[in-house]
Parts: sequence; structure tokens; C-alpha cells
Amino acid sequence: MPQAASRNRSIVLQQRPHGAPDAGTFRLTATPVPAPQGNQVLLRTLFLSLDPYMRGRISDAPSYSAPVEIGAVMVGATVSRVETSRHPDFEVGQLVLGYSGWQDYALSDGAGLNKLGDDVTLASRALGVLGMPGFTAYMGLLDIGQPKAGDTVVVAAASGAVGSLVGQIARIKGARAVGIAGGADKCRYVVDELGFDAGIDHRAPDFAQQLVAACPAGIDVYFENVGGAVFDAVLPLLNTLARIPVCGLIADYNATELPPGPDRLGLLARTILTKRIKMQGFIIFDDYGPHFGKFFAQMSQWLKDGKIKFREDIVDGLENAPQAFNGLLEGKNFGKLVIRVTQD
Amino acid sequence: MPQAASRNRSIVLQQRPHGAPDAGTFRLTATPVPAPQGNQVLLRTLFLSLDPYMRGRISDAPSYSAPVEIGAVMVGATVSRVETSRHPDFEVGQLVLGYSGWQDYALSDGAGLNKLGDDVTLASRALGVLGMPGFTAYMGLLDIGQPKAGDTVVVAAASGAVGSLVGQIARIKGARAVGIAGGADKCRYVVDELGFDAGIDHRAPDFAQQLVAACPAGIDVYFENVGGAVFDAVLPLLNTLARIPVCGLIADYNATELPPGPDRLGLLARTILTKRIKMQGFIIFDDYGPHFGKFFAQMSQWLKDGKIKFREDIVDGLENAPQAFNGLLEGKNFGKLVIRVTQD
Repeated sequence: MPQAASRNRSIVLQQRPHGAPDAGTFRLTATPVPAPQGNQVLLRTLFLSLDPYMRGRISDAPSYSAPVEIGAVMVGATVSRVETSRHPDFEVGQLVLGYSGWQDYALSDGAGLNKLGDDVTLASRALGVLGMPGFTAYMGLLDIGQPKAGDTVVVAAASGAVGSLVGQIARIKGARAVGIAGGADKCRYVVDELGFDAGIDHRAPDFAQQLVAACPAGIDVYFENVGGAVFDAVLPLLNTLARIPVCGLIADYNATELPPGPDRLGLLARTILTKRIKMQGFIIFDDYGPHFGKFFAQMSQWLKDGKIKFREDIVDGLENAPQAFNGLLEGKNFGKLVIRVTQD
Repeated sequence: MPQAASRNRSIVLQQRPHGAPDAGTFRLTATPVPAPQGNQVLLRTLFLSLDPYMRGRISDAPSYSAPVEIGAVMVGATVSRVETSRHPDFEVGQLVLGYSGWQDYALSDGAGLNKLGDDVTLASRALGVLGMPGFTAYMGLLDIGQPKAGDTVVVAAASGAVGSLVGQIARIKGARAVGIAGGADKCRYVVDELGFDAGIDHRAPDFAQQLVAACPAGIDVYFENVGGAVFDAVLPLLNTLARIPVCGLIADYNATELPPGPDRLGLLARTILTKRIKMQGFIIFDDYGPHFGKFFAQMSQWLKDGKIKFREDIVDGLENAPQAFNGLLEGKNFGKLVIRVTQD
């Protein structure tokens, strides 16, 4: 069932998952393509971004955004083409970055839409290196992490959309970059292709010892996007005055209960105290929205200068989004995960 | 065995405690009074400050300072009188703030000594409201906590040297101050005498519910100086963008093992992430030393204007320091604990 002009396929939340999303979590539906009213534009989705934060949006646990309602279309950033326009600022055929969600078509009054260049082969960058993931890596590392030359910066999911950029930006700032990833291929990639100083496989039985060996001077910045066993290995290596930007905790997203004891909450607090550590959560657009232009200009320059590389993991077909999303939570993607909703 | 001109009583660390310090932890000894050499001064201790951080100094667990060696004199801030001077900057009879530790006499080459005014009745303030505890409250609250008008600021050990000031400074900045203390007397004191908006007894069986009731708009700043059950009650009440300066964890200092599970380390990380919380440890002179003058001037003005009140818990006799120190760890003191080593 590919994209068509006559119907709008959409993926809606059918029920909240207990643990990992399963076959009952999402449902593919089709409805008539809506007609723009007033000053609306009709957008046709070309690319849909899949990102770990979406796991939080389908849970009803307290979080930083309201959950997606049961029966509602899944949210997500998209690159779309303007199909019909009643809005003076948008012309048919233009490419825009927006938030149409997991569906073929969406209406918009223009709020929150950003026009992109004409090159559709570059459009998906707006969902990755030049979009939310890139902005997240840039601000979290530079504003909270504040790496100095010679510092050791550790990041997990190091071949992913955010982690790959955290390590490369750390290198640009003169720091050592230690990446943690799942499997030998990803570890080789972050070292050989992205220039990290070390790549460590978190699936290795001696992972914690390998991390010790890769951080002989301890850890000054730990960019937290996974939690779980990686954080356990990082904790004893943190240096005095270390900084921990907390961007995500993907290892815990599917957890249904707290792990068994002992209770290390006090241990973490004691480490923060005795090592004078700063640990700070952030939500990129809420905390740093006004800085987007600065980020975009800098990242574009780095791309142009060949200082930043990136990799996309493109999956074809809207109907494959649920499976690809589960793979993302399990670390199966390799690079920024994007759904190509249609070949345009 | 009072202070005498002919011998130097000192309290040395005899063995590291396992859990709470006991009769074998410290030992009182006496040695000849040392004679100044070179440009040294001989100091005679009038007041000795007892503070929670000292528990960390007698442990050999990793911390922010080297531990006191077995057999060495216990460290501590003191107000002393210059008895003999071979130093051009110091005259016999002057009062100085220094770090002579738990003993009657000490030599100094002047490094780190600060001259105080002549009024011995005010001298002990240099160990409390105008010294390290005051500086800790001031910088931790204002630089990390950053209370805004209308915020709710929570602090435990609220009748103590640091907590009492945290709440009063929060009030000066227009915030609501909620103090937690042990027992009805201390709770009444922080409300009736210090002007806190609420005082809650952490020994009450419904302590957590009382805290909820006292924080109808949640908690914006939690000044952490105790940890343990108080933090457990605070955690679910933290607001988005809350700040947690971590100054101490007195409830855990005597702990010999981690508490039983479940393991809430990930829960804390998740709270930091979803609520975009900043949790930051600090060690006052290491992190903020150059700001002391600014603090001292501001706090002196507040004292003069009657905006800040303080209370001292003065215990007579150097020999009573170990017992008083244990009482401090158990919350038995009421106000800033100071040992009056001699009536001068």
C-alpha cells in the first residue's frame, strides 16, 4: 500500500505498550486526504524521522510532553512537499520541515514550518545532522558539557544520530572522544570514519574494563543518552568537576519496573557531592530554541569544511515505521534512522 | 584538664570508624606547647568549629580532600589569639580565623590566617554566619539554586548553621522557604524566629505527606544537605527545571553499606531528564573562593539590617568535642555547633 493521492495512510497509537512496543501498539489506517481550509497548506510527507524520545510520548508516565492520545496519529518530525497552498508564504512544490507525524498527508497553517532548499537528496539532513539530533548534540555538549582541550568525553549510541555528532564536536574542541556502540562494525565506524579516539562495544563481556582502559585520565564529560549498564561503568570513572548532560536514557525506556537493589540513589548523590559533578537534564527546543540559528550556521560550516560526517539509516515505507522504531530502541539502526515515506 | 600555658592538648584520630564514630575513634593527648621558629606565630585556640564535613575527613573513602591520617590532629576551623609572634603582620593578642584543628595551640607562618576584630564575643561568628557555613549557604543557594521570587525552596537541617541561612536568604529573594528539622522546637524556631513559611519535622510519621502539603506548587530549589529519607520525600515533588545544589548528605555519612533495593539510580536519572533538573555538587572554598569578599560584605549588611538571624550551640571544653561531633551527626545540636575551647 504505497503513498497515493487519494488516501491518507496514518499510523495511530492503538494501545500503550507495557515494556517494548509490540504488534498491538500501533495500527495503520487510511482516511481521505484532507482539504485545506482558510490559509492552510496540504503537506505530503517524503521523510519521517524516528527518534528515541518517541518512546516517552506513547507512555502515560509523567514526562516533558503530553502523551500521544490513544487513537491519535503518532507524532514526528517530517520533510514534506507542499501539495496545495492557500497560504501566501508557501508555494506548491516547496520542501518544508514540519511535524506532520507518521502519515502521508497533513494540513498546516504554516506555524512551525521551515522552508528547505530544493535538493530532495539533502532534505533528510534537516531531520538529522542539521535538525533536532544535531542541535541536541551541539547544545548539550557545548553548553552543559563544556569540553576543554584534553578532556575525555564519553558518549554511547556513538554511531547514532546524536552520539556520532557529540564525539566529532568533542574532537573539534580538542577533547578525546570515546564512543560506546553495539557491535564491532559500529565501533570500527566511529574510530575509522568519524575519528573518535576509541570505540568500545558495550556487548563485550569485559566492557567495563575496556572503558577503564580507554579512559586512562578518567571521564570529564559523559553525554548521557542511554543509562543502564553504560552509566554503571561510567560512574566510577568520573573525574572531579565532571559534567553530565542528560539527553536520554534509551536503555530504560522499555523498563516496566525498577531493577533490584541495592539502592544506589544515594551513591549517585554522594558521587555528585564528593566529585562536585554537574548532572543536568535538557529538552533541546524548550531549553535552547533561540540558539538554533547559531547551531545551524556552525554545523553547516563544519559540514562544508568536511569536519563533520554523518550516516543515515533509511528505511523505505511508512508501514515499516513501527518495526524500525522497535529496532531503534534495541540499537539495530546504524546512523540516523529515517523513514522514506515515498520515492519522490 | 582545662587549657593551660604549659601543654598542648590535642584530639587525634585513633582509628577510622565503621559507621558512627565511637569511643575508639578519637584520643585526647597532651604534648609540650611548640615554639615558633622563623616567621611563625603561636596561636591559642578560643573556638573550634564542628561541621558535618569532618565525617568525610576521618573516612578513607574517596572524597574531595585527603583523609586525616591515623595519629594526626583532627582538622577544623578555629578562632585563635596570637600568643607569640615572629611575623611582622601579626601582633600578640590579635584574634585570627585559621585552621588550627582540634587542639589548644598551633604554629602558623601566617598563610590562610584572617584577622578578626577585637570583640571576642563576636568572634565565633567567623565560624558560622560570616564563615564557611554562611558562605556555603550563600553561594550554593544563589549560584546553583538561583531562587526566583515565588519559587519554593526546601532545605533540611533547617535550624543548623547552613540550613537556617539558606531559608532566610531564600526569603530575602522573595521565595517561599520550607524548612525540615528534627523535633517540634526546631520547627517552631525556623518559622517563628527565622521567618520560614513552614517547618516540618522529619521524625513525624506522616512527614512525606506534610511536605506535600507545605509545597502546594512543588519544589523549585532543594538545597541538599542531608540525603536519605528527606530526599526520598523531595524527589516526587521536584518541578520542571528544579535546581539541586548538593552541599552534604549527613544522613548517609555513617552508612556502612548501600540500602536494600530496588535500585533507584535510574529513577533519579530519569527524573533529572524528564524534569530537566540540574543537580550539582560543590565544595565551597574550592569552587567559590574568590567570591568570599562579596559574600562577607553582603552578609554583614544583612546582619546589620536585622534581616538575618542566627543561633549558636556552644559547648564548653575541647575534651567534649568528640561527643558533640557525634551529636551533630545525629541532629542533636540546635544552631551552629562551636566548641569554646577556653573562656578567654
